Amino acid sequence: MISVQEALHIVLNSVQNFGIEEIPFLKSFGRILKEEITADRDFPPFNRVSMDGIAINYLSFKKGQRSFNIEGIQAAGSAQITLKNTKNCFEVMTGAVLPNNVNTVIRYEDVTIENGVATINIDAINDGQNIHLKGKDFALGDILISENTKISAAEIGVLATVGKSFVKVAKQPKVMIVSTGDELVGVDEIPLEHQIRRSNVFTLVSLLEKLQIKSETDHIADDKPILKSKIETYLQEYDVLLFSGAVSKGKFDFLPEILDELGIEKLFHTVAQRPGKPFWMGTTKTCTVFAFPGNPISTFVNCLAYFHPWYFKSVGLELNEETAILGEDVTFKPNLTYFLQVKLELEKGFLTAFPISGNGSGDLASLVKTDAFIQLSDDKIEFKKGESHPIIRYR
Amino acid sequence: MISVQEALHIVLNSVQNFGIEEIPFLKSFGRILKEEITADRDFPPFNRVSMDGIAINYLSFKKGQRSFNIEGIQAAGSAQITLKNTKNCFEVMTGAVLPNNVNTVIRYEDVTIENGVATINIDAINDGQNIHLKGKDFALGDILISENTKISAAEIGVLATVGKSFVKVAKQPKVMIVSTGDELVGVDEIPLEHQIRRSNVFTLVSLLEKLQIKSETDHIADDKPILKSKIETYLQEYDVLLFSGAVSKGKFDFLPEILDELGIEKLFHTVAQRPGKPFWMGTTKTCTVFAFPGNPISTFVNCLAYFHPWYFKSVGLELNEETAILGEDVTFKPNLTYFLQVKLELEKGFLTAFPISGNGSGDLASLVKTDAFIQLSDDKIEFKKGESHPIIRYR
Repeated sequence: MISVQEALHIVLNSVQNFGIEEIPFLKSFGRILKEEITADRDFPPFNRVSMDGIAINYLSFKKGQRSFNIEGIQAAGSAQITLKNTKNCFEVMTGAVLPNNVNTVIRYEDVTIENGVATINIDAINDGQNIHLKGKDFALGDILISENTKISAAEIGVLATVGKSFVKVAKQPKVMIVSTGDELVGVDEIPLEHQIRRSNVFTLVSLLEKLQIKSETDHIADDKPILKSKIETYLQEYDVLLFSGAVSKGKFDFLPEILDELGIEKLFHTVAQRPGKPFWMGTTKTCTVFAFPGNPISTFVNCLAYFHPWYFKSVGLELNEETAILGEDVTFKPNLTYFLQVKLELEKGFLTAFPISGNGSGDLASLVKTDAFIQLSDDKIEFKKGESHPIIRYR
Repeated sequence: MISVQEALHIVLNSVQNFGIEEIPFLKSFGRILKEEITADRDFPPFNRVSMDGIAINYLSFKKGQRSFNIEGIQAAGSAQITLKNTKNCFEVMTGAVLPNNVNTVIRYEDVTIENGVATINIDAINDGQNIHLKGKDFALGDILISENTKISAAEIGVLATVGKSFVKVAKQPKVMIVSTGDELVGVDEIPLEHQIRRSNVFTLVSLLEKLQIKSETDHIADDKPILKSKIETYLQEYDVLLFSGAVSKGKFDFLPEILDELGIEKLFHTVAQRPGKPFWMGTTKTCTVFAFPGNPISTFVNCLAYFHPWYFKSVGLELNEETAILGEDVTFKPNLTYFLQVKLELEKGFLTAFPISGNGSGDLASLVKTDAFIQLSDDKIEFKKGESHPIIRYR
């Protein structure tokens, strides 16, 4: 049995490279950027009018001139025009190129326009005001988005601005999720007295959907030859296999044995944690195998605590530990890391975690009442209200 | 001009009901539940073995018996079997029904098995241990998930468990996103000197994708008759129209005029905020119109500050204000609510917001460097490090 820290260390040293693909930028939301995005031109690409109003030559204003004949209109999207007489003005629109021979914009709110003449009603005018200067935001060649950034709405906007209609992102792993257990029946079946419906594969599908990974699922009976032959095929076809169940000490927990027989290198089996202790992990050259214990909360927390960081590191994303303040005292005697379910409250900038007791690792419904797990280390028994500890959020 | 508080109040009083639809449960991730989910049976549905090991009658143990003949195996997924001789035991597997005539489970780790006899190696055995009692987690008819819950992986698991292969969720609104502005060209076009590429419609698409809303987009030239006729059609076909641009004081900012001519009831125009002041909002009986100013940051922050809460309330989701601690002093003189871009850091449970100065509302690329906006109210000028204020996250 190894500690949670050791297990995570091993997991993060076994990351995989799924490669790179080029996809339409508008499909890249939530994906991990695999190229540097640079500016294809200065931005703004021209001296840009940033207020609707009139544009004048500041020198005329400084000399005392307040009324200006309107020589024309510079609309956004029109080629730059030129003021013929520097005692005149142009009407100019937000987003337009600043016309030639003017250098200061006065917004409509401070101007009266009558019979083709604009009169400025205020005295506080700054030379060059209301102009967003060429290259002020960024210059041609500037790095706008670094490689390995997770693409959010902000990045989508920048990709559009610089004309990246296709963008390189990390390929997603091909994942097969397999449940075992003869007591399990399908979601639309009516279970017999001694049966229950499958649920773990679907929570795993959803936990992967959060990472934009589309996975496939299968259920295999507790039958050694069938299990073995199916897994042999899946090992060839997928980057990742996630299992739920059949890794503990039961008579029909064939999985560790089969995975061994199939030549998968075992990295560890059983981690000093509650819930989720009998977790098995191994790899082949092309496939990583996470075999989670079958209790619902065990599968759930292990996917979050190990598969998620493994995926993040695999695609190049930086890992950020999150923390919260314990909202009440907790005592936990076993020499195990305790993943305790908590409800989070963010008030005045303090993130507090309130423990919610469930009925053990089988109580899937308790996850509905909580938002996260707080991770209490195995080197202590008493955890005091007010202490901060790492958390793993799932909402 | 109205305050941000007044604007939000009006927005939240104009929510729409998009109706309810029934969809496959595995497609419901991120959607809002529109029915109560109750237990279709007790859970566990039987006294469930929760450890692999042997099951005995505790009375025999109490009387001093330590060795038990193994009468058979109760596997998970098999119908309940009955112990014939209460001095014997069964091997039992996690997830199995507890056999008849036994009441206590001892895990394999504490037992030696030889020649069909199991010998218990420890003395600390509790009557009834390692059994997850029928109905302990919940009883038939118990509410497991309330209506109006946002469906996460935890809820997907519960839906599977209770056999809800189809589930009622809030229908998503039909949304059309329209940009205007003759300076804008497509993402895969090379702009002329005085042109830029469209980006706001795509940031809006992504901000809606985060809510699982699939939207459509259009770009309309700054031409009043064309704009008017297209909008007239869209008003009939969509639940929501989002505009970016043409709501300020420019000569070609036709939108408020057109929306008025089309009989849309204006709720407000211009909000005392920076950025995003010229925001226009109105409604018809069947359509809600959000017309955001066209600067990239203005469109972005207004979508988050108004459309998102409007959507949440429309589908029945509770609004939760988030807050963070200001990481440095800020001075802001204008009598406006200031949506200031910040980078968030969560350390020891304290969420701190560090202001990152951009180059004003046109600087879309600055959003790449930040995670959220902190909302500084219009009734103060000095905001001190250490104070907490509301935030609007976009990562």
